[in-house]
Amino acid sequence: MLDKIVLIVAAGAGTRMQNNVPKQFMPLRGKPVLMWTMQVFHDSDPFMKVIVVLPEAFIPVWEGLCQKYDFVIPHQKKVGGPTRFHSVKRGIEGLEKDCLVAVHDGVRPLVSMQTIDRCFEAASAYGSAIPCIEIPESLRKTVKGGSVHVDRSKYRLIQTPQVFKSSLLEKAYRQPYREQFTDDANVVESTGCKIHLVQGNPENIKITHMHDLAYAESILAGSTAH
Amino acid sequence: MLDKIVLIVAAGAGTRMQNNVPKQFMPLRGKPVLMWTMQVFHDSDPFMKVIVVLPEAFIPVWEGLCQKYDFVIPHQKKVGGPTRFHSVKRGIEGLEKDCLVAVHDGVRPLVSMQTIDRCFEAASAYGSAIPCIEIPESLRKTVKGGSVHVDRSKYRLIQTPQVFKSSLLEKAYRQPYREQFTDDANVVESTGCKIHLVQGNPENIKITHMHDLAYAESILAGSTAH
Repeated sequence: MLDKIVLIVAAGAGTRMQNNVPKQFMPLRGKPVLMWTMQVFHDSDPFMKVIVVLPEAFIPVWEGLCQKYDFVIPHQKKVGGPTRFHSVKRGIEGLEKDCLVAVHDGVRPLVSMQTIDRCFEAASAYGSAIPCIEIPESLRKTVKGGSVHVDRSKYRLIQTPQVFKSSLLEKAYRQPYREQFTDDANVVESTGCKIHLVQGNPENIKITHMHDLAYAESILAGSTAH
Repeated sequence: MLDKIVLIVAAGAGTRMQNNVPKQFMPLRGKPVLMWTMQVFHDSDPFMKVIVVLPEAFIPVWEGLCQKYDFVIPHQKKVGGPTRFHSVKRGIEGLEKDCLVAVHDGVRPLVSMQTIDRCFEAASAYGSAIPCIEIPESLRKTVKGGSVHVDRSKYRLIQTPQVFKSSLLEKAYRQPYREQFTDDANVVESTGCKIHLVQGNPENIKITHMHDLAYAESILAGSTAH
């Protein structure tokens, strides 16, 4: 298998929680969310190279947190851009050789090592792999004048890490930015590349609201994996 | 407004958690899930009639729990059927006059009173109302040979309570059962009736797995509404 890199995107400035602390730095069972996230990747493979994309203004904050918490996982820091697309584009600049790159949201600390392994293995075979879960509720589509029932068994919710051969990812991110680029799979797919789906783990949510943080607390409290 | 009835469907025998206790009877912060669920509806309107559909074998268990926990919310008990469709059909048998019926999953104790109010108000005006939330992740559709990105902004996840004028619900449940009847909206829609969407509350999940129960614990611990 090619060398593995994880690019952790933590470039948000965290306005949604109406809090001055971006979500990736908020405390979760005694340490910042982002440290939990990085720890899972490091535990899954201690030789995996870790790159973290941060908002420029928060780089000193992050460095202070690493000191305070004696956080010793080696990682490279990069400065984020105005959108997720720009942050990923900067994050993958200057990769030295062909490798497998996992792009992961900094605010998804509940990803399992099994999900990470499945993604890297499938990306090694197929060029791309993203984790998905089935839709746990009934699904409807809004249409002019109302909405209609749709068969949820044909749809999947998409998570991260989204893993790609670096050459595919670099090619995709040379495209000009478009608003409809909502995730990396979408950017890579727009170059004509097929996206391979693998099974995610349902608790791998994006921490967006305070109740998500409470959920993560309860999962980590019950987990033997952390 | 017409009189309000809530039909709480708690007829599952709970095999998914590999546990002998069906999920609706599992303890959540000191009392069974189903009691939390019934409490929210009772708090939203103490005059709302409450009907609970239970698995036949568990009716004595439920009666024992009501005694043990001094649970005093008045309610009528009915015996469930082999599928959700059959349980709802039995639940609405013998309604005495036109009313608004909310059909709600017994394992959704985190529904908010605001969601309940919005559903009854809209159903009073439009005949039907169901709560929905936006999709929090990227969405893909599986197609032959792979999957494609879809615009999640056009889709909604559907929750309960699903509220209908009783005449519409009774007419819909006189149809023969079909496998594609996954929720009440779908059954009512198949009679040609339009379904009105209202805003749900995102934490109103269905308790299916142990980690959902942990999530509910953390939400209720932080809530002032309960």
